[in-house]
Amino acid sequence: MAMQTGLIFHPYMRPGRTARQTFEWGVQSSIAADKAGFDSMMISEHASQVWENIPNPELIMAAAALQTKRIKFAPMAHLLPHQHPTKLAMTVGWLSQILEGRYFLGIGAGAYPLASYMHGIRGEAQDTERLNDMVRESLTIMEKIWKREPFFYEGKYWDAGFPEEEEAHTEEDEQHRLANYAPWNGAFPEIAVTGFSKNSPSMRLAGERNFKPVSIFSGKDALKRHWEIYSEANIKAGFTPDRSRHAVSQTVFVGETDAEAKREVMEGPIGYCFNRYLIPIWRRFGMMDGFARDEGIDPDDADLEFLVDKVFVVGSPDTVVQKINRLFEDVGGWGTLQIESHDYYDAPEPWFRSLELVASEVAPRISLPGQLSQAA
Amino acid sequence: MAMQTGLIFHPYMRPGRTARQTFEWGVQSSIAADKAGFDSMMISEHASQVWENIPNPELIMAAAALQTKRIKFAPMAHLLPHQHPTKLAMTVGWLSQILEGRYFLGIGAGAYPLASYMHGIRGEAQDTERLNDMVRESLTIMEKIWKREPFFYEGKYWDAGFPEEEEAHTEEDEQHRLANYAPWNGAFPEIAVTGFSKNSPSMRLAGERNFKPVSIFSGKDALKRHWEIYSEANIKAGFTPDRSRHAVSQTVFVGETDAEAKREVMEGPIGYCFNRYLIPIWRRFGMMDGFARDEGIDPDDADLEFLVDKVFVVGSPDTVVQKINRLFEDVGGWGTLQIESHDYYDAPEPWFRSLELVASEVAPRISLPGQLSQAA
Repeated sequence: MAMQTGLIFHPYMRPGRTARQTFEWGVQSSIAADKAGFDSMMISEHASQVWENIPNPELIMAAAALQTKRIKFAPMAHLLPHQHPTKLAMTVGWLSQILEGRYFLGIGAGAYPLASYMHGIRGEAQDTERLNDMVRESLTIMEKIWKREPFFYEGKYWDAGFPEEEEAHTEEDEQHRLANYAPWNGAFPEIAVTGFSKNSPSMRLAGERNFKPVSIFSGKDALKRHWEIYSEANIKAGFTPDRSRHAVSQTVFVGETDAEAKREVMEGPIGYCFNRYLIPIWRRFGMMDGFARDEGIDPDDADLEFLVDKVFVVGSPDTVVQKINRLFEDVGGWGTLQIESHDYYDAPEPWFRSLELVASEVAPRISLPGQLSQAA
Repeated sequence: MAMQTGLIFHPYMRPGRTARQTFEWGVQSSIAADKAGFDSMMISEHASQVWENIPNPELIMAAAALQTKRIKFAPMAHLLPHQHPTKLAMTVGWLSQILEGRYFLGIGAGAYPLASYMHGIRGEAQDTERLNDMVRESLTIMEKIWKREPFFYEGKYWDAGFPEEEEAHTEEDEQHRLANYAPWNGAFPEIAVTGFSKNSPSMRLAGERNFKPVSIFSGKDALKRHWEIYSEANIKAGFTPDRSRHAVSQTVFVGETDAEAKREVMEGPIGYCFNRYLIPIWRRFGMMDGFARDEGIDPDDADLEFLVDKVFVVGSPDTVVQKINRLFEDVGGWGTLQIESHDYYDAPEPWFRSLELVASEVAPRISLPGQLSQAA
């Protein structure tokens, strides 16, 4: 099986974009990715950041549902402590039905303290353990709602229930049944969690619960460690780890030539976002360290050009195939290359062309070690 | 000002429709109503009924946002006790921005006990007073979130806050501002509530808070009483009641001739829904009484044909104009005729044609008493 392709839409819109532009860019991107042959599109949920300005990923999915054919959607992630589990379970179930199964569910506890605060969680209540406890309770309730069996649950954080339905004896009774908002085919959706830090507790949770692991690329060491943590926990819980379920987020741009691709990234929206927003954050929180270590340089010397040359996957199709194959040799490979989306709203052409090249020229030539690629 | 036209989408889909069909019918209906020149479309939110099977009206609005130009949307109603106010405030604000102001907000406490139960509200907690108390607290929090001023609120039902943002001194600071999810132009959206019963407490609330009053037509006496309750409370609270803000839900079908229109309603999806679902409910809960009283018959004798002839607004454009003008004389008139949508998913033609006739041939010929219609 060849490598799968995904888009992850944070969406890194430059400050000043309107909600309508952000929303429209999301819908346009989903249609373009679907046409290019992408397998999945994840959409972030953020309550607080001007560069990451989507509070309701489900609205973009809904707008794209009837205009796409093949691509799967996932919120990445619905923040469980911010919403009532019954309401969310019904939204997830209904949208999964609308998408006829082209859906999986990213879940998270919320990484931004300001966003937690807005939802009434402040001070000690923002402790990671407590947030994760909320995630567990929410998930327990959502699964009960999806099961459609009678229960009433008085939780630490929420109460919820599912009523006993009277049996329908007559045709008239049939007209008063409960609507069914369980996910497509009544099955639970695949659940995904994202890990970033080297010793990511999310990767352990993913392994234990057999969730789909999603890594944000933060250097080869961390990525190898993610797989170790995940697969150890996964085996311990009685499952068989499957690298093809692992998705890795990366900054990727493919052009006709190496020079053209590099220039586009340095001078275009990707470079703009990194220089203004991401590089300052990465420096402040030591997120450059892994990349710098991989290449043996001082983190303070890591700038945009270093990232483009050594960390991102940028170049002609041949170069990008080479770079990914080298990464696969070093870290063991993954199933889905999850490409970080950027703000090409004003002139989408080079971006959509890059997505097309990834799907048509790159992905078919990459396989997990030990598996045959289409082009091998 | 001529009468305005609205669609209300419950959506009365016959059991067996898939979520995708329901969703698609919602999007198609919004596009058709927009093209026909309708002013507004309200979409219900229900957690529990098979005939009223939309848990998330905002998903249909999102799907219609880029495909409509003029029509305004409203959830009718978001059920405030079922969701965290911060999350809902952001959804409302973001969607109102996406729709560039083509948005108003229906709110409700939830009328179905099973739906309340699912959201953890059972037994005495389902008491109307308590549900309304939840509505008030939710609204208080939502307004604070929309104001974007620092607060932290420990409520009876929810905690919520808005963080103090540090002043942005440098350009870098600018990159880390909070995203703005307040409604379009930073203004609170117009809020609407629905009343049904003759002495509707919702009408009183609407008057007190100067919300937009929406009546479900349940006979002339009740409709007159709705306006009295509303306007009394509205004046007492220092406002000036404006009948043009009043919307009234009705079953309406316009055909080329009276006979064609009647046959279509009796034999088509509207008759199907009334015979199977609505007439049995109306009988069980005494909801036929007002209509029967208006016409001096026994409620037990009220059947579909009685409704079509005497209660619904069905006929050729001329007949429908006459019927509405007579109603206006009897009850004082209203601003928006809110047409109840039905399941014409299989063959939309007659339904969409009826909407066109309402907008082009009927509405311009109806005006509030004392106002000049276009065609006068």
